[in-house]
Amino acid sequence: MKYRTDLAIENVEMYDEERGQTGDIDGVQMEKVEYDEAIKATRIKVLDARGEAILQKPAGNYITIEVDGLIDGEEELKARASKALAEELKQLIHFHYYLKVLVIGLGNDKVTPDSLGPYTVSKVRVTRHWFIIYESEGDEEQACVSGFIPGVMGSTGMETADLIKKAADLVNPEIVLVVDSLAARNIGRISTTIQINDTGISPGAGMGNHRTMLNEQTLGHRVISVGVPTVIDSSTLIIDALEGYIKNPVEVENYIEQNGQDMIVTSTDIDQVIKDFSDIIANGINITLHPGIYS
Amino acid sequence: MKYRTDLAIENVEMYDEERGQTGDIDGVQMEKVEYDEAIKATRIKVLDARGEAILQKPAGNYITIEVDGLIDGEEELKARASKALAEELKQLIHFHYYLKVLVIGLGNDKVTPDSLGPYTVSKVRVTRHWFIIYESEGDEEQACVSGFIPGVMGSTGMETADLIKKAADLVNPEIVLVVDSLAARNIGRISTTIQINDTGISPGAGMGNHRTMLNEQTLGHRVISVGVPTVIDSSTLIIDALEGYIKNPVEVENYIEQNGQDMIVTSTDIDQVIKDFSDIIANGINITLHPGIYS
Amino acid sequence: MKYRTDLAIENVEMYDEERGQTGDIDGVQMEKVEYDEAIKATRIKVLDARGEAILQKPAGNYITIEVDGLIDGEEELKARASKALAEELKQLIHFHYYLKVLVIGLGNDKVTPDSLGPYTVSKVRVTRHWFIIYESEGDEEQACVSGFIPGVMGSTGMETADLIKKAADLVNPEIVLVVDSLAARNIGRISTTIQINDTGISPGAGMGNHRTMLNEQTLGHRVISVGVPTVIDSSTLIIDALEGYIKNPVEVENYIEQNGQDMIVTSTDIDQVIKDFSDIIANGINITLHPGIYS
Amino acid sequence: MKYRTDLAIENVEMYDEERGQTGDIDGVQMEKVEYDEAIKATRIKVLDARGEAILQKPAGNYITIEVDGLIDGEEELKARASKALAEELKQLIHFHYYLKVLVIGLGNDKVTPDSLGPYTVSKVRVTRHWFIIYESEGDEEQACVSGFIPGVMGSTGMETADLIKKAADLVNPEIVLVVDSLAARNIGRISTTIQINDTGISPGAGMGNHRTMLNEQTLGHRVISVGVPTVIDSSTLIIDALEGYIKNPVEVENYIEQNGQDMIVTSTDIDQVIKDFSDIIANGINITLHPGIYS
Repeated sequence: MKYRTDLAIENVEMYDEERGQTGDIDGVQMEKVEYDEAIKATRIKVLDARGEAILQKPAGNYITIEVDGLIDGEEELKARASKALAEELKQLIHFHYYLKVLVIGLGNDKVTPDSLGPYTVSKVRVTRHWFIIYESEGDEEQACVSGFIPGVMGSTGMETADLIKKAADLVNPEIVLVVDSLAARNIGRISTTIQINDTGISPGAGMGNHRTMLNEQTLGHRVISVGVPTVIDSSTLIIDALEGYIKNPVEVENYIEQNGQDMIVTSTDIDQVIKDFSDIIANGINITLHPGIYS
Repeated sequence: MKYRTDLAIENVEMYDEERGQTGDIDGVQMEKVEYDEAIKATRIKVLDARGEAILQKPAGNYITIEVDGLIDGEEELKARASKALAEELKQLIHFHYYLKVLVIGLGNDKVTPDSLGPYTVSKVRVTRHWFIIYESEGDEEQACVSGFIPGVMGSTGMETADLIKKAADLVNPEIVLVVDSLAARNIGRISTTIQINDTGISPGAGMGNHRTMLNEQTLGHRVISVGVPTVIDSSTLIIDALEGYIKNPVEVENYIEQNGQDMIVTSTDIDQVIKDFSDIIANGINITLHPGIYS
Repeated sequence: MKYRTDLAIENVEMYDEERGQTGDIDGVQMEKVEYDEAIKATRIKVLDARGEAILQKPAGNYITIEVDGLIDGEEELKARASKALAEELKQLIHFHYYLKVLVIGLGNDKVTPDSLGPYTVSKVRVTRHWFIIYESEGDEEQACVSGFIPGVMGSTGMETADLIKKAADLVNPEIVLVVDSLAARNIGRISTTIQINDTGISPGAGMGNHRTMLNEQTLGHRVISVGVPTVIDSSTLIIDALEGYIKNPVEVENYIEQNGQDMIVTSTDIDQVIKDFSDIIANGINITLHPGIYS
Repeated sequence: MKYRTDLAIENVEMYDEERGQTGDIDGVQMEKVEYDEAIKATRIKVLDARGEAILQKPAGNYITIEVDGLIDGEEELKARASKALAEELKQLIHFHYYLKVLVIGLGNDKVTPDSLGPYTVSKVRVTRHWFIIYESEGDEEQACVSGFIPGVMGSTGMETADLIKKAADLVNPEIVLVVDSLAARNIGRISTTIQINDTGISPGAGMGNHRTMLNEQTLGHRVISVGVPTVIDSSTLIIDALEGYIKNPVEVENYIEQNGQDMIVTSTDIDQVIKDFSDIIANGINITLHPGIYS
């Protein structure tokens, strides 16, 4: 597949385009859920090597939540989206008395389309210090949550995955919950889509950087990630726009590969996207991790 | 010309590409100045209707300052760039005892590539309140400077030009000095180029919005603007990348016009660009307006 | 009264302390409303010159909303506080088809305890540009709202009241709704209290600056203000702390007056206070002005 | 001594007040340096247990740099202050080919008077990733510098010292260079004073929190810290203001201890202080660590 996307649902779409039909995919299980007229979820499970080869994603769960008409829409729709997100997260994170979670906000808070992670984590309820102060081992209403915003390698000089591993060693969480900006093929995804997955994430992927993967193998803790597409990469933009108009597609791909590396393509209302989706995701996480306090 | 750029020097480059040669242009006067091995200025003067037709810019002065190797380079280079900018600004703004200037920072401080104006103005020395408190009519060392960050229409509900006109009426300045993000054709311009001009500016142009023009006709005050390219528009990106590969250029242009409107294309190090260039421009303005204090 | 406070309810408390009793006050009408166990409102109406002399506030309405246990408490309490605020605001602002409001965020977004106004306004739904684009004169679901963050005199060089008057002239609103930080006597008020009033406000009062008053006389439009105490002034702190321990109170007051001017006294969790109360107030305003969209 | 201050020079002043004279102090060595008419340094060396008992500071170096007239003053004075700071830092940090430094920004970037550390570190040139990419062991022009902004315990749930120890383990630096906000007795210190010391620092001390100490014992790396007073604590304010007016000082101290804990007292121009001093300190650090690039 010639497009770069972090969304499994777009890999499905592209596979369907290629084969000219929709329907069952070998080694992939799909289920659709309709929360209401505006909110839908698609649960994609990559089961085995056949599914991995077709969708080019490691085996595991990929849940996409799609919300229509969010930007500048009804405030109450944001609350419904948070609840739907929490419902889906609960499939992967089960609250219990001793639950301990480290929430990571990847990305650069100084570059708007890369700031989703830091903004979201700053709105998540962090509680671990209270467990320490009150010498408490668990709680019926809320999990023991810590938060970490590691920054980007250009500002820290350190590999982000290394820093996160160190923070995870300190906290020893059951789950590392990572929030990041993603890249999509279709610009329409930017203000409508959230993806949850349990197969790990590569910091900076949305920004075109390919860093050490964060997953259970590298961190030694289970990794759940939540992301929102905030950019499309420039090669995707160009190829997608010009399908059918181009004389020599291969040559074009080479050209783009050499020239498009240092660009970000994003939406003009990206500030509003970051504001709305960081609210939705932080609330969804708070409902999931602190069921006695948020609902 | 099929490319959208705010830089007169790129219009010259495109005209030269079209006609297949460089050199004199009818109705345009050009002069190059070399400050040092890293800093160059090109002074373009559009003299008359012939120049206006060729370069598609209103008659007036367009000064481009090009700085090599600024990002992550020597700190001292930024100081030299500020001084070069001040030298060029002084050609258009003459300090005197009664000089009164309103400095405007256009753009949206919440979207990184659109935040140059607000960041720059927050670093300019504002003095008007001291002139009022001390009941002073003028000063030998510094101008009477006010600063205004009008925000964007999506946040204020007001036409930016209307708000600026109101602020200008309040202050009654000799010069309205506007700082804004610009659009360029060539992404390499993003971390190297500053443009000064005295023909007015259209708020939001860099972001693809076309608002009421700010110039002497609309404001009733002389307008000098200083800008840095921080985005290239997506049509420019696509057309420029694919020159020669496209079957039907006109059809492509139509396609892009319909689909590319809501995108921003910028550089991955845009946070550093904004930080460095807001420092350089604020210092250049401070040197020009407050010669007794900055140098 | 020796304490400086912007809260009418604290003037009532101080008057009660002085006279050694509570109960009816000449020229003042008071009513208490209990929204639920955590949220109470006190509606103080200064009726005439007797009430003005006693409470040292101009005649008009002063509504105090008190919320217990907000910081780090249940998220849902914030939603209830927004609704209570909207109920009280509706007593002073009646939604109708042609309602036009200019919302002003006073203060300095770069100084945390002074940033309530700017943060709140950035979360209010601004709609005026849509009315213009669609050439609409009114709407059944939402008011025509514009937003303005004028900055502080040290950054603009302009008197804040003058700038606001210019913006109000541009928009011609039925109501100018001003959000600002206030000063209280009692530090416990900082994370619990919201005051609404309809008698005007003085920009910068919370920060110890006394600027031109914003009210119907100076602006030519009705002014409603919403504020939260975020600072106590240092003289208040000292006098309040040391009641009874001081040898010569008058001398102390003189001392403080000369030395305490340039200080801010605030709470260590002021960042959380600004975050929570800007959410509550913005939502309360959105519910009041856009009843068809928020609820 | 009844006042809480992080500045050794204020401990000297208080000791001199108590004993009614100035001059030599047992176990303490002092030296004054005058850089120019506006910039002075005082080098205090606590030599032994006698000095530790008198000044209530661990043995080591405490260098105070005092700058007159910085706020709203000449830009060039800031450059001179950076150079003086670099001169003093060089006494404790010797640049060499293999120098490796981890720069830490303590504090909360969302509370203005506590944001000095994060702002400063964001302006320091970080280079470690380039050493890794180019597989370089050292450099003649610049040190191998990493940067880390650990956040505050209320946002991370983690003890700040623990997080820093983890980051230091990752980088293995010769020196951990910590930048933090400090508390002073005298509010006049807020816009004039920088302190360097080599005896460690307690995160959050300036904000009234007492956390695990950062020093060579706890981190296993040499610690140099640079701080600027940005707050005075409320007890200091009250006691200092009322010296001589109070009937029963001990009772007052008890009262304050119980009531003054959650307050911050700072200066009204704290935003400008943070902006100016983060520039000065970042430049001073850049000159010290990257002598081939900054000067």
